[in-house]
Amino acid sequence: MHPPTAVLLHGKGEDEVKTRVCELLGIEHPIIQGGMVWIATPELASAVSNAGGLGQLTSGKDPEKLRASIRQTKEMTDKPFGVNIPLLLENAPDLIQVAIDEKVQVVITSAGNPAKFTGHIKEQGIRVCHVVPSVRMAQKAEGSGVDLLVAEGWEAGGHNAYDDVTLMALVPQVVDAVQVPVVAAGGIADARGFVAAFALGAEAVQLGTRFVMTKECVAHEKYKEAVAAAPDTGTVITGRTFGPTRILKNKLAEDIISWEYQGVSAKEILERLGAGRSEKALLHGDMEEGSPMIGQIAGMIDEILSVQEVFDLILGEVKPALERLQKTLGS
Amino acid sequence: MHPPTAVLLHGKGEDEVKTRVCELLGIEHPIIQGGMVWIATPELASAVSNAGGLGQLTSGKDPEKLRASIRQTKEMTDKPFGVNIPLLLENAPDLIQVAIDEKVQVVITSAGNPAKFTGHIKEQGIRVCHVVPSVRMAQKAEGSGVDLLVAEGWEAGGHNAYDDVTLMALVPQVVDAVQVPVVAAGGIADARGFVAAFALGAEAVQLGTRFVMTKECVAHEKYKEAVAAAPDTGTVITGRTFGPTRILKNKLAEDIISWEYQGVSAKEILERLGAGRSEKALLHGDMEEGSPMIGQIAGMIDEILSVQEVFDLILGEVKPALERLQKTLGS
Repeated sequence: MHPPTAVLLHGKGEDEVKTRVCELLGIEHPIIQGGMVWIATPELASAVSNAGGLGQLTSGKDPEKLRASIRQTKEMTDKPFGVNIPLLLENAPDLIQVAIDEKVQVVITSAGNPAKFTGHIKEQGIRVCHVVPSVRMAQKAEGSGVDLLVAEGWEAGGHNAYDDVTLMALVPQVVDAVQVPVVAAGGIADARGFVAAFALGAEAVQLGTRFVMTKECVAHEKYKEAVAAAPDTGTVITGRTFGPTRILKNKLAEDIISWEYQGVSAKEILERLGAGRSEKALLHGDMEEGSPMIGQIAGMIDEILSVQEVFDLILGEVKPALERLQKTLGS
Repeated sequence: MHPPTAVLLHGKGEDEVKTRVCELLGIEHPIIQGGMVWIATPELASAVSNAGGLGQLTSGKDPEKLRASIRQTKEMTDKPFGVNIPLLLENAPDLIQVAIDEKVQVVITSAGNPAKFTGHIKEQGIRVCHVVPSVRMAQKAEGSGVDLLVAEGWEAGGHNAYDDVTLMALVPQVVDAVQVPVVAAGGIADARGFVAAFALGAEAVQLGTRFVMTKECVAHEKYKEAVAAAPDTGTVITGRTFGPTRILKNKLAEDIISWEYQGVSAKEILERLGAGRSEKALLHGDMEEGSPMIGQIAGMIDEILSVQEVFDLILGEVKPALERLQKTLGS
């Protein structure tokens, strides 16, 4: 990894990257922080928004805790941030109402049908983004009126789709299928991935794993150490038969996958797992029995930076990366 | 898809894309055609080499048939081409000897350990390339002396790795881990994917699926029609437990995956399958009981072009793609 060299970028007109996504969300740089469950807290989200990107809170399941998180974040930044709300949560409507009441600028919905909620949220003047894993879901989400889409590839950490469409294949096909701007998520941790995503037609990127590995992220030290140690082949998808989830390879992953191939039913596996597996890994550092959700790009990341350093590192390398591309491919 | 507009590119100095891979292989454009089993025939390989890329023959299993294929290709082009030799074939040494005897310019090995063969092939003045799915395999192959590497992502069609490392995650990590040039394979079918691969650090691309969908490819019409009709989610990996293979979703794929999750042994599944499943799909057009190997980018391709048109289409869009990138990201 190169040292941060991009401090000169901030607010300097000639080097700024401005896209439709920046205008829509009122942000300076087209970088969104993924709304990771348990660890997308006010500390992380406010740091990302203060750095000029879009920070994002995980909604959790408790509306009052979410309200407190939003208020805490507003004390830590006066810039826009978002809340990620998985629509399969039973009380998603309550969580959405909190986001509306507390006047967050952006709601990013995932894991469910946005048709029921998008219109209502937009009427409150809130931007709505939906996370999609395929062209069909992208078209459905656009039809429901979302302002922008996150196209999330198979590389991404945590909850994933049943189909394994990777970012290389997904982004250009989604871009061709919709009119709204597309944000690329999954497999991106440096300027090379950032530029590649834009080459594929994305107008912003969403990073999860890279922001896990920051000082501001409250994730457990042991979990961060395991992410730093992971090679390119260090993650695996568990739950292909009942809910695909990308996690670090560990004992739990071996168990789940072996049960699946032994024909154990989804119901039985979910009973064996019980609740709280991801919390166990992410917050309590249990790297054997916990579910350490993380993206495949973990293999590239071996150091913990501040959020500002992540921005500096990525944005500072964009111009050199473009110059190399121009030299190799251009006239 | 846009109409071919790039005829002006051929041989015009100022628009040429020249990389270390071009110099190593003696080719004009950094585009390699995948050595697809059954269908990487002299017709296709010679057309690709004549267009300025590197055509590649599948070795098959019969040394004398390979000898005939090489001789036929030499009658159809005087430009360099390669032979793909899967090292797990029992008679790989015989196939390699034929490639040496017939003085092919490039041998691309895959599916096995290149250490045993690379030195011997290189001593004959032949360039050696090895296909890898991970950083560890890339380092091993480089250690064995290969001239260049193909980093093949999980998006790629046909035989695949046990780990699901996608191109976005794989290419930059392999590039960081080795000194030899890296070719990106998997998920690339247009200029956007081409430029993205270079942004990730690749110095050439290898395309399989895009060349299946050409007039020169001898694949069965019904198979090509199924590829044209496939959506982004149209492929799936079969054989995760005994030999991962990306194919179009069909009855065979459903059967294999359901057997795997019922705990049927690899031995039993292979017995049920018998031999000739890919030939059945690719050459005989049996789209239900055959194994229609194809890459995930099939979803993007809906028309059959000539090989020259594929080159024109991709290379002709590189400059506009770079200009868009520069406008969005550059100063």
